[in-house]
Amino acid sequence: MPRTEPTALTLLRRTHEAQVVDVLRRLGAVSRGELARHTGLSRTALSSITGALIGRAVVVAGPAPAEGVRGRGRPVELLRLHPATGRCAGVDLGRGRVRAVVANAAHQIVASGARACPPEVPWERRTDAALELLDELLDGSAAGLEGIGVGLVGPVPAPGERAATVVRLLGERYGAPVLVENNTRLAALAEAVHGAGAGARHAVYVHLSHGVGGGLVVDGRLLGGASGTAGEVGHMTADPGGPRCRCGNHGCLELYASLPAVEAAGGPGDDGAVARAGRMTGRVLAGLCTAVNPELLIVGGELAALGARLLGPLESELRARTLPAALRGLRIVTARLGDEGGALGAIALIRQEAPPAVNGGARAAAGPLAGCTGPGSSG
Amino acid sequence: MPRTEPTALTLLRRTHEAQVVDVLRRLGAVSRGELARHTGLSRTALSSITGALIGRAVVVAGPAPAEGVRGRGRPVELLRLHPATGRCAGVDLGRGRVRAVVANAAHQIVASGARACPPEVPWERRTDAALELLDELLDGSAAGLEGIGVGLVGPVPAPGERAATVVRLLGERYGAPVLVENNTRLAALAEAVHGAGAGARHAVYVHLSHGVGGGLVVDGRLLGGASGTAGEVGHMTADPGGPRCRCGNHGCLELYASLPAVEAAGGPGDDGAVARAGRMTGRVLAGLCTAVNPELLIVGGELAALGARLLGPLESELRARTLPAALRGLRIVTARLGDEGGALGAIALIRQEAPPAVNGGARAAAGPLAGCTGPGSSG
Repeated sequence: MPRTEPTALTLLRRTHEAQVVDVLRRLGAVSRGELARHTGLSRTALSSITGALIGRAVVVAGPAPAEGVRGRGRPVELLRLHPATGRCAGVDLGRGRVRAVVANAAHQIVASGARACPPEVPWERRTDAALELLDELLDGSAAGLEGIGVGLVGPVPAPGERAATVVRLLGERYGAPVLVENNTRLAALAEAVHGAGAGARHAVYVHLSHGVGGGLVVDGRLLGGASGTAGEVGHMTADPGGPRCRCGNHGCLELYASLPAVEAAGGPGDDGAVARAGRMTGRVLAGLCTAVNPELLIVGGELAALGARLLGPLESELRARTLPAALRGLRIVTARLGDEGGALGAIALIRQEAPPAVNGGARAAAGPLAGCTGPGSSG
Repeated sequence: MPRTEPTALTLLRRTHEAQVVDVLRRLGAVSRGELARHTGLSRTALSSITGALIGRAVVVAGPAPAEGVRGRGRPVELLRLHPATGRCAGVDLGRGRVRAVVANAAHQIVASGARACPPEVPWERRTDAALELLDELLDGSAAGLEGIGVGLVGPVPAPGERAATVVRLLGERYGAPVLVENNTRLAALAEAVHGAGAGARHAVYVHLSHGVGGGLVVDGRLLGGASGTAGEVGHMTADPGGPRCRCGNHGCLELYASLPAVEAAGGPGDDGAVARAGRMTGRVLAGLCTAVNPELLIVGGELAALGARLLGPLESELRARTLPAALRGLRIVTARLGDEGGALGAIALIRQEAPPAVNGGARAAAGPLAGCTGPGSSG
């Protein structure tokens, strides 16, 4: 008989671990017998799986309350999730500030904070600021931290060397998986999952700011693309005969719908300049809405705050140029999460890409943080 | 203690069924004891799961070969997959013909055939032709058929009434799940999975024919979109100042890159007309490649057969207008599966969307087909 592939066994084991965590998440504290009944796993398989989860401090075992003690033999031991299991952190190393958010297993925000960090502050100092902020928000311990998502500003695609440094520094300090993404794309994910989109399966996000960026959410997940440019709507052609863009192409949307472009055309007080930005955005997004067919189009960034003067021309151009069947059911909304968007998207990314008890879970070795002088001690 | 949700239990059961089928697929014939060891499931859970799979004729139980018979007690019974388990059928109710393909669990094509069916043949007769063809290709029995995928030509989105009729007729006759999709999108999926793309995670397909259509494959799966228009690149704007299209918008790609458009501009022998079709296609796809960032762009349909006269201008316009980072690693290829593309895509869709032993598996009731006079008897 052929031997079972090790990879298949590993996958099976992860599935079983996830089943156990899922049952504990739903039922709270249960005995080993109840766990066997609710998962359908054999006692032998369960024993090995719970042993590993306890070793990684994802699950804790303890005596049942008094009424659970039987007349003879050992008291019944109950298994439950570690209280801190399921915490996730999101960090946005954005323009002008560093922001971090920590959420619990119930997806509630338990801590949020920011440190001013002007654009001219060097890269290493920004990372230090992020570490200080995280130490504070994590209350002195990385126990139960399932992962850290990090949003970076930067050229497209995300800068390899910086991303690697961030992954190394945060991973070493907190002993949890670290994922890095472009922070505009993370804002797109956050808006689709929690914000203006609240559960949208397919969403297109456009961010009209110093540059023009965006993100595509497909089936509830962020689309990265083959080389990490997915969602770069700022470099779709708005005018085939337009001037040359910094990317090398001509007539890119960013030349018409960024803050500097609006400034150059008369400023945000000039209705014509603002309307042109809206029209060009609508023209480019029309093609994307026809071909990607989202249920939701989210407009964010400083220019979105200009309201109807921008959104009116955007929407009328979009409606004139989108395939009617694709327009059916399309909602156009403005972004809602503001400055926390990138950090919240980083948490959403961790929850999607690093499922609990498989890649994540508290590490047994993760005790109080080195270099952190205790809860609330940093400013 | 709160009760377990029925939905969670159902999901758990499906996971366990899939584990059992997966083990049998890898190991062939195994005893119940071996199955318990390889899945980690308890005997009690296994008994219920294998009972259901045997009832649905997905799994068959039989005595082991002679050496398996022990001195006392019952001979050891081995479980294996039904020999026909895992067959899938794909049907393309396309322009000018009906085509069908049947593949086995090893993804080999075991039967393929077509019936001429000119465009003027009424809808009901086309469905009859598909049923006759399928009866023949399935060799008189629907045993082990996991599902039937069907590709339809049609306005966007796929026509609801026709789709419902096809699902009903095929479902009643073969007792298997039926999924319906636009046949150009199915060709896109087939090219990405088996054809020119062979395993591409992210692909954009454009079909230049009587109309201009296409499909997007994201993470290996076909993107349908919120209202079923995903991939409709023919109605993305190629020239903002262009003439009115039948869809109501102006300057759509289809007005420049369809067979009728090339005919009207001088015909496929006219280099200028062909080059314009290529240029306009490249212009529209450039934006899509920037924002969706595929690793593969596949050009299919009759115009793709014109070769470099079309593909040269297409590629140079595409390269001039796509974000450089998105161009990195992008391959441009022509479609390879020809007339079988739609039917093969229909099979790929069934394999992705109706996993074995969950939605599919042979139906116990599926015997020889009513109305089919036996293998090979139809012409």
